Amino acid sequence: MIETLSEVEVHDLLDRQVVGRLGCHHDGFTYVVPVIYARLDDAIVFYTTEGLKVELLRANPSVCFEIDEYDELGGWQSVIIQGTASEVSGDDAKAVLSALAERFARRRAERSTGEGQRPRAEGRAPVAVSIAIEALTGRKVAREAYTRA
Amino acid sequence: MIETLSEVEVHDLLDRQVVGRLGCHHDGFTYVVPVIYARLDDAIVFYTTEGLKVELLRANPSVCFEIDEYDELGGWQSVIIQGTASEVSGDDAKAVLSALAERFARRRAERSTGEGQRPRAEGRAPVAVSIAIEALTGRKVAREAYTRA
Repeated sequence: MIETLSEVEVHDLLDRQVVGRLGCHHDGFTYVVPVIYARLDDAIVFYTTEGLKVELLRANPSVCFEIDEYDELGGWQSVIIQGTASEVSGDDAKAVLSALAERFARRRAERSTGEGQRPRAEGRAPVAVSIAIEALTGRKVAREAYTRA
Repeated sequence: MIETLSEVEVHDLLDRQVVGRLGCHHDGFTYVVPVIYARLDDAIVFYTTEGLKVELLRANPSVCFEIDEYDELGGWQSVIIQGTASEVSGDDAKAVLSALAERFARRRAERSTGEGQRPRAEGRAPVAVSIAIEALTGRKVAREAYTRA
């Protein structure tokens, strides 16, 4: 039985998860790629580097962004967002970086492990992207373990 | 440093993961949705029910299928597939169902829990889908915990 997520459940899922999948297309080509995201105001934001997905976003900024979570029993929650991607720069790009950094600092503290996250070393220019949310669908299937009487 | 996955690593990732994200588009609309998949011969297969994604697949069978995995240190692996989706029926649909069932029986046995998986009860006709793989890109970033000297 598929149910609709409440606003609070949508909020919680977006907060709990770190990786979402960006879907974009141009000229008949569909591309889905995982990105580590944060939320900033009402947008989904991430940092990436120049490459295929940035080319596709420039060609067609109309995107889908998907976040999901599965539990051990086969239950799941998902949020599917339709939105418009735009590159941000200057102070807005700094805000994206801060939102991502703050998120990871929090998660690292929660995990209490001592590892460090190395910076990307791909030699490609970084690009900060913001996705303005235009439509959002949140759904879930809850499953419970059952025992035979 | 992004590296290319070997054929064995691609194989292992597809075997280890259960949920992939299907990306499809039609008429300017991009849709990404998680599906529980199996492999059958050289194809990615899944079962779904009549709805938006089946409509999109019928309108444009050219799809992307993405599988990823993140570890605690921020390392990741991903496989991004370009392929063509087709509905299968009859014995082929039974083979899809068997491949999925076999996969879950194995995983359930591995977990040794006693829960049952309830059948879908959405009242919509089931559709078996096979994605013929046309191109595949496997990439990874390995990260190691480091300690300061």
